Amino acid sequence: MGMIGGGPGAFIGAVHRIAANMDGEIELVCGAFSSSAEKSKETGSALHLPANRVYESYEQMFMKEKELPDGERMDFVSIVTPNHLHFAPARMALENGFHVVLDKPMTFDLDEANKLAETVNRSGLLFCLTHTYAGYPMIKEARQQIKEERLGKIRKVYVEYPQGWLSEFLEGGENKQASWRTDRKKSGIAGAMGDIGTHAFNMAEYVTGLKVTKICADINIVVEGRQLDDDGAVLLKFNNGASGVLMATQVAAGEENNIKIRVYGEKGGIEWKQEDANTLLVKWLDRPVEIYRAGTGYVGKFAKHNSRTPGGHPEGYLEAFANHYRNFALTLQARMKGDEPKEEWVDFPGIEEGVRGMRFIEKVVESGGGREKWVAF
Amino acid sequence: MGMIGGGPGAFIGAVHRIAANMDGEIELVCGAFSSSAEKSKETGSALHLPANRVYESYEQMFMKEKELPDGERMDFVSIVTPNHLHFAPARMALENGFHVVLDKPMTFDLDEANKLAETVNRSGLLFCLTHTYAGYPMIKEARQQIKEERLGKIRKVYVEYPQGWLSEFLEGGENKQASWRTDRKKSGIAGAMGDIGTHAFNMAEYVTGLKVTKICADINIVVEGRQLDDDGAVLLKFNNGASGVLMATQVAAGEENNIKIRVYGEKGGIEWKQEDANTLLVKWLDRPVEIYRAGTGYVGKFAKHNSRTPGGHPEGYLEAFANHYRNFALTLQARMKGDEPKEEWVDFPGIEEGVRGMRFIEKVVESGGGREKWVAF
Amino acid sequence: MGMIGGGPGAFIGAVHRIAANMDGEIELVCGAFSSSAEKSKETGSALHLPANRVYESYEQMFMKEKELPDGERMDFVSIVTPNHLHFAPARMALENGFHVVLDKPMTFDLDEANKLAETVNRSGLLFCLTHTYAGYPMIKEARQQIKEERLGKIRKVYVEYPQGWLSEFLEGGENKQASWRTDRKKSGIAGAMGDIGTHAFNMAEYVTGLKVTKICADINIVVEGRQLDDDGAVLLKFNNGASGVLMATQVAAGEENNIKIRVYGEKGGIEWKQEDANTLLVKWLDRPVEIYRAGTGYVGKFAKHNSRTPGGHPEGYLEAFANHYRNFALTLQARMKGDEPKEEWVDFPGIEEGVRGMRFIEKVVESGGGREKWVAF
Amino acid sequence: MGMIGGGPGAFIGAVHRIAANMDGEIELVCGAFSSSAEKSKETGSALHLPANRVYESYEQMFMKEKELPDGERMDFVSIVTPNHLHFAPARMALENGFHVVLDKPMTFDLDEANKLAETVNRSGLLFCLTHTYAGYPMIKEARQQIKEERLGKIRKVYVEYPQGWLSEFLEGGENKQASWRTDRKKSGIAGAMGDIGTHAFNMAEYVTGLKVTKICADINIVVEGRQLDDDGAVLLKFNNGASGVLMATQVAAGEENNIKIRVYGEKGGIEWKQEDANTLLVKWLDRPVEIYRAGTGYVGKFAKHNSRTPGGHPEGYLEAFANHYRNFALTLQARMKGDEPKEEWVDFPGIEEGVRGMRFIEKVVESGGGREKWVAF
Repeated sequence: MGMIGGGPGAFIGAVHRIAANMDGEIELVCGAFSSSAEKSKETGSALHLPANRVYESYEQMFMKEKELPDGERMDFVSIVTPNHLHFAPARMALENGFHVVLDKPMTFDLDEANKLAETVNRSGLLFCLTHTYAGYPMIKEARQQIKEERLGKIRKVYVEYPQGWLSEFLEGGENKQASWRTDRKKSGIAGAMGDIGTHAFNMAEYVTGLKVTKICADINIVVEGRQLDDDGAVLLKFNNGASGVLMATQVAAGEENNIKIRVYGEKGGIEWKQEDANTLLVKWLDRPVEIYRAGTGYVGKFAKHNSRTPGGHPEGYLEAFANHYRNFALTLQARMKGDEPKEEWVDFPGIEEGVRGMRFIEKVVESGGGREKWVAF
Repeated sequence: MGMIGGGPGAFIGAVHRIAANMDGEIELVCGAFSSSAEKSKETGSALHLPANRVYESYEQMFMKEKELPDGERMDFVSIVTPNHLHFAPARMALENGFHVVLDKPMTFDLDEANKLAETVNRSGLLFCLTHTYAGYPMIKEARQQIKEERLGKIRKVYVEYPQGWLSEFLEGGENKQASWRTDRKKSGIAGAMGDIGTHAFNMAEYVTGLKVTKICADINIVVEGRQLDDDGAVLLKFNNGASGVLMATQVAAGEENNIKIRVYGEKGGIEWKQEDANTLLVKWLDRPVEIYRAGTGYVGKFAKHNSRTPGGHPEGYLEAFANHYRNFALTLQARMKGDEPKEEWVDFPGIEEGVRGMRFIEKVVESGGGREKWVAF
Repeated sequence: MGMIGGGPGAFIGAVHRIAANMDGEIELVCGAFSSSAEKSKETGSALHLPANRVYESYEQMFMKEKELPDGERMDFVSIVTPNHLHFAPARMALENGFHVVLDKPMTFDLDEANKLAETVNRSGLLFCLTHTYAGYPMIKEARQQIKEERLGKIRKVYVEYPQGWLSEFLEGGENKQASWRTDRKKSGIAGAMGDIGTHAFNMAEYVTGLKVTKICADINIVVEGRQLDDDGAVLLKFNNGASGVLMATQVAAGEENNIKIRVYGEKGGIEWKQEDANTLLVKWLDRPVEIYRAGTGYVGKFAKHNSRTPGGHPEGYLEAFANHYRNFALTLQARMKGDEPKEEWVDFPGIEEGVRGMRFIEKVVESGGGREKWVAF
Repeated sequence: MGMIGGGPGAFIGAVHRIAANMDGEIELVCGAFSSSAEKSKETGSALHLPANRVYESYEQMFMKEKELPDGERMDFVSIVTPNHLHFAPARMALENGFHVVLDKPMTFDLDEANKLAETVNRSGLLFCLTHTYAGYPMIKEARQQIKEERLGKIRKVYVEYPQGWLSEFLEGGENKQASWRTDRKKSGIAGAMGDIGTHAFNMAEYVTGLKVTKICADINIVVEGRQLDDDGAVLLKFNNGASGVLMATQVAAGEENNIKIRVYGEKGGIEWKQEDANTLLVKWLDRPVEIYRAGTGYVGKFAKHNSRTPGGHPEGYLEAFANHYRNFALTLQARMKGDEPKEEWVDFPGIEEGVRGMRFIEKVVESGGGREKWVAF
């Protein structure tokens, strides 16, 4: 694996590296960690990389790596830059024959997303979009139970993602994260809705297997002086007639990162929240709520495959993230060997999820600014 | 106290009686418990009431009781009938000099609500609307902390009221509660939104001290054949610029009755849910969440007054309900003695809250059926 | 009902009155509320009692009440004085034909307990000891499930009762509760072990249906200057071979009153804690934990009978307490009518539980002071 | 790093490898994974190791690795075999100049433990014993707060470790874990007390900074036919006069692995449990409980150093495990560079903890079989 981005001060780059390391299936062999050659070197050295595999730019990396022999050359690239720097390196990677792991939201705007989709499809290469929360074993268990129609027809979806870290105006200060995530030139047309709303949206569609067809959004800039939305709520309609509510905010002072989903069908419901990530509550009309737990003998094959330890040994955010990397790597290894990958392995978010996420951003901003109640998705 | 309604099969009538009994300040002395004289007698006898104080109709009750001497005559009436039978007895009570405790929602429609408000104001008598959840000590603590501006300016309000008991079509069967609550002729123009949405709405305004100014509602009839909405979500705007989301549903299969509120200001937030009613979470931007608990030495005077036991002795729904009765009784006793009631005593929901609740119903139905995003409140 | 004790400053007297009031089956008609005639009058007046039914002493109360006609005379007496004032009025009540409700621990010492047992048995009158926690619906559900052998043979019992309110030396100050509960002349030979250890002990035996046969106790006076133990832990052996641990402390700074029990059998376990009193966790070897909830349709007849509201309307400490009063009253009414009381009604703690509790105190103190590991119970 | 043990079917070997991989500071370069050369090869190949670094025995590994040049040779060995195979390879490693990471309990018996301690001390090499739970950031926070005397003098310690997986007789079947952990020849004189009791014991001493001085143990073989204890409870006395209770069981049917500790001092208490590992409750006599959370800005330097992500991104068991490896690696790197390691780095369990753990096992078995209440530690 090679990495683009993830230099000094980056949060998500370090997370990607831990996730890739965790299961011993992936080795970081090269990187272009910063637009500053200096900083790229510094990071490469801290990561114990040989100097000749630390590049000054991603363009250089692709060119040089391409020339390396099989087995030495990186197999895929992981791109962990801010949103405005996703599209160009991702496209270039694909055009040079490298598989791609990309951080979300997929691109700067929907137009780039559509172009990238075209490139991915044309290339026939593997593409993974790291919607972390879809990697949790109990999210996979929820999806499987719903797919098996244990809850009956789905009627209602509540998904929420409350954060509080942008409650104050942190832009332009030392907080690099706050600065680029609120910057229209780097993040695109949405703030909170792009950063975390897309996670919530992906989770709603992934868990239910449904597609959103109409939305009605209220989005707000709460902190004075901010360029982009830091708060919003969206009413949802799904393709089976179900309705839903999506809430995402970065000004819920005192909240950390507790993304949560509840889904209700004719016979019962499920509830999951990241704060208690190893637990899935399954609720029934006329009998006790059941507490499904990761790592136990009674969960389905998707949850099982995505756990490393027995019940009661909590796995968290980094393991969820690592699940995407592991599944991507297992799929890639199978492909390289000419084997059929297992159903559980290919279950990582891809280009379609990426395009839908970008459409979500566009439609939310459209609805937020309009006077009509419903906007078709 | 006299009671109107609360005959065989009634749920809320029994709750009102327990609430009134609890603190030994109120004695049930008479009643007209059913439109059937037979059933009224049956209930009166089960309640150990003397036969001559069990009436065949509320009209008879008011006429007879009026003639009784001071001290023997009931002081106030508690009306616990379905919505369409609130207005007439309430008005008649007031016109005959009896103070009134009334179940929510206040009336059948907004027109009745306005007329009742006029009658209450003209009469100068005491009026209490039993929005149960406003009686919880930790809801009062939340209100006090927000009033004292500990959270700074309020920015965001989430209130939700999920129930699952109407997930199936129960109308017309043995379930008397299901039948009248989904019947347009008894409940009015709204189902879930009237039954529980009004509670959520009241809680949002009560806790924050703010007023809703605009709404955008999505309301649904989920169960086939049902007359009235059994589900909905409402985007809210408040008079200080804050925004909010209200969710109320009766088809969240597996949910019981876990009304919950979260409010966020510039500096922190609060969270309360009925399932853990003796706890108020107070969250801060830069220090640990605090767990405020009912019955402790450190809560404010409103919470203190509305608890009966020390910390760790859970009080619940019936005690919250009883708090309204106790505060009503203490205020009434003070008035009868010519004393000034304490600030904590007069803190029970009244006619204004009732009118706003009925307007909420009207506006939600209007918004739910319209194409414009925002409807002024 | 008449009351002995419960004058100004008493905590438990007020609780008993609320519990008795709650269900409208019991009326407080007289009392001797304090050893001071003055204070007794004051309390009687605050309780709206007629002056001639407020007595100067319990002896006077029994004599006068006995002479009143049937239907007017109190049927039973509730005794809520400190421990050293339990035996004499209870015996006198029984000898004068009054049924008795008595607060725990039953008497000052085991000798009094045995004498009282003899008196109760001889009298043929009803006797209820208010071990509050046995009144919770989900404790009754736990007992029923264990009785029905759903968990298989019981192997392990953990019961704990942590409080923190005696972490400091409060004796002799304004805190009347702290003063008598730590006073050897009023409480007997044990402090925490008598006050709350007996509750934990009763819960262990009540829920499991087992009897303790051997104990090994470590009891401590943690706060300097205190006369009686304020902390302890006891290893337990039961008559079926199961083992257990009982922990009770009043110096766990920051704890409120969260009595908790866990029981494990061959097939599964149960867990209940007062802080979440409406929930019973039922755990299984090979399938998800189930959350049983009070007020639902699927709980057994004991839990059902001891709830007043549907699931999701939390009932708490006062309702648990009231369940004992209600069951006592229903049993008494049946008896007065010559009916057979239901199994659920006679399910309140009585004289046997009282004697066992006093033996627990004696044995714990013996074991705490000895060098042998096990003391036969 | 080289590894001894961790072949097919091993649980803890895989955990060690993930923990070592996670932070990119440690590379697995060789191993002797099984006493069967065949299985060792199989595992080595699955781990992408070159064939010449997969050894047939640990003796061979030490001999061959010693001859490799600096930088290529493994720096330390991780030993993850069953208890009876700890001592010999650990001693041989040290005698050949390799630092050691060793799974717990440290050795087969106390005698071996003392000998190993001598060897470690003589060698001057680094030694880490993987008491996983001491690696959690909020355990480190608890330790730091107690060390800073925020709770005042410690009075009471409750530590518990309930598991249910040995509720049935699994010995001799396919469950390799069950077989060796209940085998006196492989585990030593204790079962549950050695396997998980030592973790609980270590946690009690680590968090409080106190030392146990006396114990009173009840240990049991609950499942018929089992060779070693599967359940026990221990009363504890500490060197500052505090008392405590330790509970460890593997027959609490339905329990997973929820190790939990509560400590109380004069002014407050702390509570932590693995099930909610990122939270530390800090309780106070007269103000709200505080919820300290991992990854936040307000925790101390030990908690901070041992987290990888911001608050609300749950880290779990594998990260706690990885913290020991990371701290060991950072200390080793500092030592190799001749730098002074930071206080936070050298904070991993070592030889002293190992010896105390083995003494705990010996004393618990002695007390469990004796008639005297207290056994000096």
